[in-house]
Amino acid sequence: MFYGRMLRRISSSMCYNSILKMKRMRCLVIYAHLNPFSFNHAIKEEVEHLLKEMGHEVKVSDLYEMNFKAVLKPEDLNLQYSGSVAADVKVEQEKITWAERLILVYPIWWTGFPAILKGYIDRVFSYGFAYTIDEKGWAHPLKGRKALLISTHDQPESVYHDRMYTSLRDTQDVGVFEFCGIAAQHIFFPGIMGSSDELRQGYLNSLRDALEEL
Amino acid sequence: MFYGRMLRRISSSMCYNSILKMKRMRCLVIYAHLNPFSFNHAIKEEVEHLLKEMGHEVKVSDLYEMNFKAVLKPEDLNLQYSGSVAADVKVEQEKITWAERLILVYPIWWTGFPAILKGYIDRVFSYGFAYTIDEKGWAHPLKGRKALLISTHDQPESVYHDRMYTSLRDTQDVGVFEFCGIAAQHIFFPGIMGSSDELRQGYLNSLRDALEEL
Repeated sequence: MFYGRMLRRISSSMCYNSILKMKRMRCLVIYAHLNPFSFNHAIKEEVEHLLKEMGHEVKVSDLYEMNFKAVLKPEDLNLQYSGSVAADVKVEQEKITWAERLILVYPIWWTGFPAILKGYIDRVFSYGFAYTIDEKGWAHPLKGRKALLISTHDQPESVYHDRMYTSLRDTQDVGVFEFCGIAAQHIFFPGIMGSSDELRQGYLNSLRDALEEL
Repeated sequence: MFYGRMLRRISSSMCYNSILKMKRMRCLVIYAHLNPFSFNHAIKEEVEHLLKEMGHEVKVSDLYEMNFKAVLKPEDLNLQYSGSVAADVKVEQEKITWAERLILVYPIWWTGFPAILKGYIDRVFSYGFAYTIDEKGWAHPLKGRKALLISTHDQPESVYHDRMYTSLRDTQDVGVFEFCGIAAQHIFFPGIMGSSDELRQGYLNSLRDALEEL
């Protein structure tokens, strides 16, 4: 409810001139948090709201709501070997194929993706879909797309310093998305645990600029 | 079968003098690979074999075999808030409490843990068990233990360079284990995809020294 009020206040201040200059894009929001009252949920809502306000087409994959199966199983690999994928993976691959932009909203847990999001990557970014290899080397069927990673973490910024941020970008932006030819940017919102409404509101306010640069 | 022959050959060459000098320790092997014919499985078998041969007590958590539930759910957090954990988490926490050494065997997938192992960390390393915080700061109930991470990856060593290895150590050794006061070491076995028996045998041969340093 509190976030709802904030979002309405933000949306009423939008700049229509900047919208008119924008290209309409197909955006897939991939969201991974277990709590619908979390700040991550507020970010997801705000991202979805802003993208629609900017005139983009939006689809959302809410991994917890979908109860997405997180664990890559032998049957997934068997299907890949026969050039196929599981039905739930196929649905997600079609969304990614459709999308020009991927926006991921998730918390950093234990300096990594939540398992449900890691499992999404393990299963959906399958061989043949996200990458292939032949005698010429790696090929990247998803090349040309862009990804924006928006992630919260409880530690204050001072604990992560530049080094942990670099390591997170290496193991998430580079190791997953850029490996697939998807240019990636990453926004971190630190210090969430016990944070003030003002800090969170400031983070939400910063999303418009980030999404305008998509 | 091939690995079985290799393992027998290695075990017959063991050095009993070095064993006699060793302290008997309680070791928990946490293993995460979906394929019982994989090189990771051969590593797990060899680790278990060597540890027993060295006189240590060994327990194994084979996450795929256990069909471990990888996704942290709202009910996990609700239990944590009431000072409890789910039954499957409790079993694993008791193993970790018992253990003086943790040995993790897993592949690097997408520059991270496989989801089932990430979910093990998300669920088992719970607040109150793996870390607590009060007015004095973070506390580390698991302090004093040591972890050895043994991970394979398909990319050749030259692709990961020092930088990605540093980033993997930061986000796995430091971000998970050292955050909990558990000293961590990490062995990487690169270039697994399409690798020769000789390379894999060399990797297996190197495990004895690593385990003697536990």
